[in-house]
Amino acid sequence: MIESLFRPRGIAVAGASRHPTKPGHQVLRNLLAAGYPGQIALVHPFAQSILGIPAYPDLEQVPTTVEMLILALPAAATPAIADAIVRRKRARGDLAVVVSLAGGYAESATEEGRRMQERLAAACRAAGVRLLGPNCLGVVDARNRLDTTFLIGHHREASGISLLSQSGSMIAWVTRECQALPHPVGLNKFVSVGNMADLSLAELMDYLGRDPSTRTIGLYLEAVSDPKPLLEAARRAAFRKPVVVLKSGRTPVGDRAAFRHTGAVSDDTPFDDDVARQYGLLPVRRVDEFVATLATFDRLPLPLGTRVAVLTNSGGGGVYALDTLAARGVTLARLSPATTATLRKLLPPFAVIGDPDGYVDSSAGVGPRQTAQAVAALLRDPGVDAVVQLFVPTPFNTAEEMARDLLRLLPGIRRNSLAKPLFPVLLGGSEVLPARRLLEEGGMMTFSSPEEVGAALAAMLRYAMARQRLAHALMR
Amino acid sequence: MIESLFRPRGIAVAGASRHPTKPGHQVLRNLLAAGYPGQIALVHPFAQSILGIPAYPDLEQVPTTVEMLILALPAAATPAIADAIVRRKRARGDLAVVVSLAGGYAESATEEGRRMQERLAAACRAAGVRLLGPNCLGVVDARNRLDTTFLIGHHREASGISLLSQSGSMIAWVTRECQALPHPVGLNKFVSVGNMADLSLAELMDYLGRDPSTRTIGLYLEAVSDPKPLLEAARRAAFRKPVVVLKSGRTPVGDRAAFRHTGAVSDDTPFDDDVARQYGLLPVRRVDEFVATLATFDRLPLPLGTRVAVLTNSGGGGVYALDTLAARGVTLARLSPATTATLRKLLPPFAVIGDPDGYVDSSAGVGPRQTAQAVAALLRDPGVDAVVQLFVPTPFNTAEEMARDLLRLLPGIRRNSLAKPLFPVLLGGSEVLPARRLLEEGGMMTFSSPEEVGAALAAMLRYAMARQRLAHALMR
Repeated sequence: MIESLFRPRGIAVAGASRHPTKPGHQVLRNLLAAGYPGQIALVHPFAQSILGIPAYPDLEQVPTTVEMLILALPAAATPAIADAIVRRKRARGDLAVVVSLAGGYAESATEEGRRMQERLAAACRAAGVRLLGPNCLGVVDARNRLDTTFLIGHHREASGISLLSQSGSMIAWVTRECQALPHPVGLNKFVSVGNMADLSLAELMDYLGRDPSTRTIGLYLEAVSDPKPLLEAARRAAFRKPVVVLKSGRTPVGDRAAFRHTGAVSDDTPFDDDVARQYGLLPVRRVDEFVATLATFDRLPLPLGTRVAVLTNSGGGGVYALDTLAARGVTLARLSPATTATLRKLLPPFAVIGDPDGYVDSSAGVGPRQTAQAVAALLRDPGVDAVVQLFVPTPFNTAEEMARDLLRLLPGIRRNSLAKPLFPVLLGGSEVLPARRLLEEGGMMTFSSPEEVGAALAAMLRYAMARQRLAHALMR
Repeated sequence: MIESLFRPRGIAVAGASRHPTKPGHQVLRNLLAAGYPGQIALVHPFAQSILGIPAYPDLEQVPTTVEMLILALPAAATPAIADAIVRRKRARGDLAVVVSLAGGYAESATEEGRRMQERLAAACRAAGVRLLGPNCLGVVDARNRLDTTFLIGHHREASGISLLSQSGSMIAWVTRECQALPHPVGLNKFVSVGNMADLSLAELMDYLGRDPSTRTIGLYLEAVSDPKPLLEAARRAAFRKPVVVLKSGRTPVGDRAAFRHTGAVSDDTPFDDDVARQYGLLPVRRVDEFVATLATFDRLPLPLGTRVAVLTNSGGGGVYALDTLAARGVTLARLSPATTATLRKLLPPFAVIGDPDGYVDSSAGVGPRQTAQAVAALLRDPGVDAVVQLFVPTPFNTAEEMARDLLRLLPGIRRNSLAKPLFPVLLGGSEVLPARRLLEEGGMMTFSSPEEVGAALAAMLRYAMARQRLAHALMR
């Protein structure tokens, strides 16, 4: 039945509007723009058609299959549509899922709102139809060309990242940040759950955990009334793929706003980072770190161990990055004598090599070729599982030249190094963007801050360790 | 004498190179590109001139005034140049400051390096000449068209922000981030202090504290052997202008790398955020927050109180932003009944107004004009000292339309509201950049994340409160 949420055979929209400024108009635009391959019909009191989509005065009269009904109606229209849902299901048997976008239900904190939500949910239950929302943005499935939202509007080629969210606009924000990356990342599936009158985060988590096209799951939470089923589902999903979680509503004002947002009240059981980790989830704290961590899991190979080497041509940047990584529990490698000797020969006399362990400050006086060779030497070291490279451009080591040298040297290296992840951090705002694009076009991922790498790497190392423990347990 | 560091009458460079890949060449390029108005000469064993600048085999033979000597020589050349410094000063009396760029001194952790540094410092002391560095990037003064670095290379129109830094490349990073802002911010002065064999952060802080063109001071620290004089100087500076501080070397590995970077050993007295606050400084934790906080002080008016209103058209973004602000101690306003009534009339029925206090979620269903009017209503409220506006674009509320409406409404408002600061946060990566530029061209400052605003606003509120206490004390 949840399958119908992502690949419905036939859709009807109630509450569509002719006015471009109305959400009920944009829903149609998005459905059409996504290129949904099935048939779409409208339920509208008097229109013949809107944007070329045929309209019918009553849901029962829609002649085509309606597996998904999208409601863009105000909450006050609930009783009428609730009856229509039951009638349609009885008459045609096709309806499987209702997606209710409008607000004004339980989150309004009014008796009327609560009553309307219960009325809608009861009708769906009676009809044996699942309900997403109300007060949600709906669902997007890029592979199945489905977009029931009024907010997102455009989609890139889908990655392996799928999102579950208690906030629709948070999904919009994350989507846009993913598309603004130097190598734009298009999301695979995402579901905004809204007030969760029926379909829950836990059920959807179970679905995404089993979904083969979802390789990484992102979860945005605000307040969860009963977190246990979600945590159990997330634990099941985490056996198969990384589940990265961002939780808001951590402060009293944030928690209050979360209640007014989706009507959800936080349980006494706190959903904090420690609890998340106990269930195998990977918590992050900020939206930029959420995006970087999801994209990293999607694009970089998992390290085989936790020994990280850091190379910098910026002394200050290096100190700052070490702090950032160490504060997140990232541990440094011990360089082999061979690597140390190679670097000693390669780098200027004032370069700091292996002090502290695993840290190399080439000094700012190096050129692009030396920089690339130093990266290669670190990747080749059998005692190094991942390499972080801090880079600040200088007049004699421009970001583009360095990027070209890196691309020239690394294809061979990466094969020999069991595809260790490399995290190039190019410092310097827009000036380094062309070089970042060059590297990304060459198949490498790049970063703009040590914090992004710190969050992504900490999550990745934690996940890699968990996978190893799982593998060891299997080998016993 | 410190004046000569920023506005030297005549410069000589020892160690200039013809080779474009050498720092000793880039120093000349930067000096010329900055448009330094005085005379420049080179000290070079055999060249007649480089890049059109005349060269002389010995410092004593330079016929023009040399108030500043820039050393781009390896540490091994120290004894010869140390003697030359003493001779020049005796013969001509013009030398006032030496800027020593090269590494290989005390930070190399070798006996030889320490000896060379002491030799250079002793010669300068004997000659009555001040020494910046060694192992530093030198100094930039955009107003006086001076750039002794080999790293920065280009400068925008100067703002009121000046920087002091224990790291040269950190300055380069911050400079580039400032220039990558939608409204690029050019730094006023900055000094990279390197190993601080003579000129100290404390002295330079005192100078910048009194410097009329410096309205905001940024301080980047790694390890300070004796923080007391710096803290006292920073406290004096903080009476006149905000001093924002970013400290690295917070973890054992970071601290060790800091030692290998500038040779400085952290004192037993920790320089942490609490200590910084005791001395009136404004600590931040990240480079992006450092940049945002400095730029905010430079561009926005100080709030007259600490009552902040938050408007959002993104429920999730609003919850997330409240957490971010509350975690930094930002407190919310209580909206007046008049403002509440205005918003109630203006916004859709599901808008959340004043729950929690000071928080307004307009819902995603609003248009650009309503959004701008809601911002105006909050700014007009006498109980509101600052407004944070979270905005996520929707198909019927595009960022550009919203920006235009904001610009239309706000000129009048800002006059009437005693120039309260407004913090528009436009969420959505590159998609919102044109709108941000529009607002910035209209004189408004914009932000890309709640965290930037949280850091800047927390620092600003703290500073505003301190100023008020100062004012109250004066009125007694």
